[in-house]
Amino acid sequence: MAKKPSIPKGTRDFSPLEVQRRQYIMNKIQHHFELYGFMPIETPSFENSDTLMGKYGEEGDRLIFKILNSGEYLKKASPELLETGKENQLTSQISEKALRYDLTVPFARYVVQHQNDITFPFKRYQMQNVWRADRPQKGRFREFTQCDADVVGSNSLLQEVELVQLYDAVFTDLDLKACTIKINNRKVLAGIAEVMGAEDKLIDFTVALDKLDKIGKEKVQEEMLSKGIDQKAIDLLDPVFSLTGSYAEKIASMKELLKDSEIGLKGIEELEFINSSITQMPLKSAVLDLDITLARGLNYYTGCIFEVAAPEGVAMGSIGGGGRYDDLTGIFGLKDVSGVGISFGLDRIYLVIEQLNLFPDSVRAGVEVLFINFGKSEAQYCAGWLSRFRESGIKTELYPDSAKMKKQMSYADRNAIPYVILAGENEINDGKLNLKNMASGEQLQLTPEEIISRFS
Amino acid sequence: MAKKPSIPKGTRDFSPLEVQRRQYIMNKIQHHFELYGFMPIETPSFENSDTLMGKYGEEGDRLIFKILNSGEYLKKASPELLETGKENQLTSQISEKALRYDLTVPFARYVVQHQNDITFPFKRYQMQNVWRADRPQKGRFREFTQCDADVVGSNSLLQEVELVQLYDAVFTDLDLKACTIKINNRKVLAGIAEVMGAEDKLIDFTVALDKLDKIGKEKVQEEMLSKGIDQKAIDLLDPVFSLTGSYAEKIASMKELLKDSEIGLKGIEELEFINSSITQMPLKSAVLDLDITLARGLNYYTGCIFEVAAPEGVAMGSIGGGGRYDDLTGIFGLKDVSGVGISFGLDRIYLVIEQLNLFPDSVRAGVEVLFINFGKSEAQYCAGWLSRFRESGIKTELYPDSAKMKKQMSYADRNAIPYVILAGENEINDGKLNLKNMASGEQLQLTPEEIISRFS
Repeated sequence: MAKKPSIPKGTRDFSPLEVQRRQYIMNKIQHHFELYGFMPIETPSFENSDTLMGKYGEEGDRLIFKILNSGEYLKKASPELLETGKENQLTSQISEKALRYDLTVPFARYVVQHQNDITFPFKRYQMQNVWRADRPQKGRFREFTQCDADVVGSNSLLQEVELVQLYDAVFTDLDLKACTIKINNRKVLAGIAEVMGAEDKLIDFTVALDKLDKIGKEKVQEEMLSKGIDQKAIDLLDPVFSLTGSYAEKIASMKELLKDSEIGLKGIEELEFINSSITQMPLKSAVLDLDITLARGLNYYTGCIFEVAAPEGVAMGSIGGGGRYDDLTGIFGLKDVSGVGISFGLDRIYLVIEQLNLFPDSVRAGVEVLFINFGKSEAQYCAGWLSRFRESGIKTELYPDSAKMKKQMSYADRNAIPYVILAGENEINDGKLNLKNMASGEQLQLTPEEIISRFS
Repeated sequence: MAKKPSIPKGTRDFSPLEVQRRQYIMNKIQHHFELYGFMPIETPSFENSDTLMGKYGEEGDRLIFKILNSGEYLKKASPELLETGKENQLTSQISEKALRYDLTVPFARYVVQHQNDITFPFKRYQMQNVWRADRPQKGRFREFTQCDADVVGSNSLLQEVELVQLYDAVFTDLDLKACTIKINNRKVLAGIAEVMGAEDKLIDFTVALDKLDKIGKEKVQEEMLSKGIDQKAIDLLDPVFSLTGSYAEKIASMKELLKDSEIGLKGIEELEFINSSITQMPLKSAVLDLDITLARGLNYYTGCIFEVAAPEGVAMGSIGGGGRYDDLTGIFGLKDVSGVGISFGLDRIYLVIEQLNLFPDSVRAGVEVLFINFGKSEAQYCAGWLSRFRESGIKTELYPDSAKMKKQMSYADRNAIPYVILAGENEINDGKLNLKNMASGEQLQLTPEEIISRFS
């Protein structure tokens, strides 16, 4: 027991200042979610395993935290599996619940389960933790917070436009200027694969293309070749690799490339609509940019795909992402409900704001007034006023012990308490309190009412 | 997959209204925590198992949710245990992490781990979920929310007084009048056991006494007998069983009973101090009551013990509890740090407020204005104003599709949206919007600016 306690790797304790800074970000996000008409829901931290398993690919299944059944959990386990050590098959016999991996699948489950109580289109937001047994690194934790806004039950592209505006509103409000909102469309990716004659390799093709940023054109081409896409098809991709210019210029090049693909042109049309809407109602600080390589690896996207990059100069993975999925609830038996949504990665946004030194000082909202404790009868006198101060909305505390003055003042200092009140015999006799400004050192003899009115 | 999805037993989905009502309660609790000088911290949802195991008794250990190790978790398991099915011993070999069971033990771990960064006395609050594999019933869930405030590093009884005031402030603010704050003191219980000559049976004795409410005097006496406490000793308890009257009257009786027990009289002195302080600064709506049978089964309490009962007539277990523990951080190697704290049970408080119909209507904070969608060009006209409305702080949405009027109006109705805006060709030509009050049916032709100023 003498061993110094620790927490599991990839998890974090949050100090008072960190909690307040997280709340500052979450409050802003929540505020804009609500201005845009989204309503909050919450789902349980753990779901039945069959709700989650198989929804995030093989890799995802591995990264889901499983909860061991309670009691005599081995009774349901096959002796053979126990003996041969086949964890993959054994797990479902000794674990029936698992921690939430994201907020999207639980949301789809929620919509299907409560479909009769929901008015569609249903606009929900959800700000909760998710857990992944991933290898921890900078900006990647095993427990982290997602803030998601989704609309289900409408395939209007106005939603995509609004979600771009919502990203812009939040990041502008957080003073995170010049974030890049990257956009692409799954139909355009499908169109490219079609033009290349590689429809059957759409996944391999997009997975490789998605890496262009990181590994460069040559390596991407190598990967495509190794997946069985032939050189002639890859050559057709050249305009994609060399795509530059404005959103509109990129659209023009892609239109030419996709001129024979119906699905491709549909995707282009969607991307054009969003761009022309945003051009008419310009974003406040973010930049909307077309990124044809963006795929986000998530196979459920069927239309637009979004990803947000932090302001230039900050090395951080994406701080948000999302897209349209035409049939997410289908996996739970409710067909033909289109959805579109975006997510804010709270933990990474925090790191970016911290790195850019953009947390306002006012976020630290600690105690405003400390009553110094001079002993039993003085403390009693103060205690009466303490309640009055609090009722007037002033964050106040009384030092609990009549410790040495130096210790009490150092407590105020270390907790950044801006004012202390000293009430000794003289003050008590005069019905006054001595208010000391910790920064300036100025002291004033005031009645308690005068102090209260100064703070309000 | 066609099977209707569900969630694990004892867990819940929260609808928008439920989330807003929970936030309403949590905001009030948080507000008062901060007025009283508590600062927020957060700890991870799961801890290393050895942080939690052995801290809540055998029953508690069983109720802790364990997380299965990732990957080839059987490699560390002893083949013999797998074969013989001894889950108790096997669990620690295949699971190294467990979900938080309460907020107190993780807090103690936090204090010890971060002791060099903390200024004592340290006043922290924490509002997070906890998980217990308990049998679900009314007011008892497998995932629920605790809101705790604790002070560590001071043994001043002023803290106990403040915690009683804090309970009163929160429950008064929630309009939960006449909650009973029951108080007892572990030293008094130890004193009674001493007087009875049953010091070695203190736990058995308090566990039995704690049940007086539920099973009555005779059954309690039977249980004590069965635990080896002799009849003569039990007869000495008679004044405890028949204790009535005011707080002060009960104190007087107990003083007589405990006159030869030093520890018992120390407990009485503490209870007297708290009562006289509260008498000088009367509570706003709660009642402080001495309950000598109160033990709360938690062995770490060493001084005062608190428990809050809902207003009379509401059948609900305790809605809050707490106490002083002189050596909680000792289990993690930091000795002699006294702590005292209280907890609010959010989920039960919710049920009580719901049963008493005390949620204000204003808690439901949904969309204020819905723009009706008449088609592409009208929607475009509205979209420009939509942003302006939102920037002015009005929660606004545009119906995403140009659906039938009836459908759009019914959407407004079902979501309790108080105003809709109709902007057809005429309004667009006049630069106006038609604002309809959904309750009265009144319609006004106004400029967008006029509408915005009406809402601010």
